Amino acid sequence: MAGTDKTQTRNLGPSPTVVLVNPQLGENIGMAARAMANFGMMDLLLMDPREGWDKDKALAAASGAAETVANAKVAPVLSEALKPFNYVYATTARPRGMTKDVMTPEQASADMHVRIARGEKVAILFGRERIGLTNDEVSLADVIISAPVNPAYASLNIAQAVLLVGYEWFKPVAPSLGMETQELPALEGPGLQMPDTRPATKEELYGFFDHIEGELATAGFFKTADKRPGMMRNIRNVFARAALTEQEVRSLRGIVSSLTRVHELRKEKRGK
Amino acid sequence: MAGTDKTQTRNLGPSPTVVLVNPQLGENIGMAARAMANFGMMDLLLMDPREGWDKDKALAAASGAAETVANAKVAPVLSEALKPFNYVYATTARPRGMTKDVMTPEQASADMHVRIARGEKVAILFGRERIGLTNDEVSLADVIISAPVNPAYASLNIAQAVLLVGYEWFKPVAPSLGMETQELPALEGPGLQMPDTRPATKEELYGFFDHIEGELATAGFFKTADKRPGMMRNIRNVFARAALTEQEVRSLRGIVSSLTRVHELRKEKRGK
Repeated sequence: MAGTDKTQTRNLGPSPTVVLVNPQLGENIGMAARAMANFGMMDLLLMDPREGWDKDKALAAASGAAETVANAKVAPVLSEALKPFNYVYATTARPRGMTKDVMTPEQASADMHVRIARGEKVAILFGRERIGLTNDEVSLADVIISAPVNPAYASLNIAQAVLLVGYEWFKPVAPSLGMETQELPALEGPGLQMPDTRPATKEELYGFFDHIEGELATAGFFKTADKRPGMMRNIRNVFARAALTEQEVRSLRGIVSSLTRVHELRKEKRGK
Repeated sequence: MAGTDKTQTRNLGPSPTVVLVNPQLGENIGMAARAMANFGMMDLLLMDPREGWDKDKALAAASGAAETVANAKVAPVLSEALKPFNYVYATTARPRGMTKDVMTPEQASADMHVRIARGEKVAILFGRERIGLTNDEVSLADVIISAPVNPAYASLNIAQAVLLVGYEWFKPVAPSLGMETQELPALEGPGLQMPDTRPATKEELYGFFDHIEGELATAGFFKTADKRPGMMRNIRNVFARAALTEQEVRSLRGIVSSLTRVHELRKEKRGK
């Protein structure tokens, strides 16, 4: 399936950011960049790539999509890197025991188009070559994307996973390029009405998580240190699912502050 | 996206035959076989593969799908090899100036399922690594399959083309394996996985609302009495949207209790 038209511009407007978490091989990064270019996805973020990953091999494997690799951002900590985003999707082979919505790539595409049209920034997480994403990484996302794959042979490499998600992302874009033949499902309108506010950024949401975690630690909520990560994951999942607005995050912080107010008063007293 | 279940059978019933026309590299044959296995396609036909193509490399690249490569048929002449088939699809990057119907992979999938259910044998042609299919080869097919791809970067390798066509082929198969996620309304609730728990009843949810409202009132969170109903409505909206489980409601009550613990301690002291 060759047939690139060099006269065409490559940038097709705002698109999801592809986040490769802890990728190991330059070739895979390059192949993922190609799959992105095939479907008009421009922004690549490499989270904690293996030390000494081979950029030359990545550029070679990227072929015409070398630009995407050259412009890739690199970041060390996922929870930091996701702060600018409003909504995050995590790709996994099969849903794990986690209380989170699961979408097909097709459903995720419809969802992403609605969000991006509203001005939201969205990111899609892809896991490591062998072991995928950790539960902690998945818990930072709002929703899981899982493609229907033959259960007897379910292994997809990173570039293939990017290809399938990109393919579905691009399907509704194609008609605007005069390319499409088929009847397209109408994108449904905004689910939530948000008068006078907007979806919270991840920075705001994570700020709330840090706040409540700190207060709970002070209050002795986490019985033992080893239970803390799992308990916090459950809490994050609840609030991620609620798709909070900026205003709601502020309210929740107000609630936490309010509930701990007495605690603060006691500290003040003690200070005197 | 790892997650193969070895206990599952690989054969998912009759499927289209994948025909690689004049493939050059063993690796590409192996990768195409993997993509086939991902989506329950069993039959591989190698048309006039390059003399001395590396079968060992193909088997290595095929990984768990080595069986598909090992069982591949090899034939020298396309027009002869296609004789047993009732209907043939040719994949090309972009429709060429040819009087032939063009389908998307999605449309082709629906078409193939109808034909195979009727007992027809269908084949899909995939072209050479660099130059695809010749016009003569395309003319042997009944219809063209063309995937919507960014015109500025339209190159897909063979394995990727097989992956996209296979993905669409498998989509309608998945529900019969009990794999399909339920229909998700755009940007709204369900589709939740709830290991070891169940959705909270309204009684449990309202119990939590009463609990948090009482504590917030005690803490002086509602500045004035007339603001209280609106503020509580916003809080209820957040948690209603999260579609909480019974377990999560208990956790949230634990959090509220924990945060107000000091408050309680003070009251006890006062009581003495």
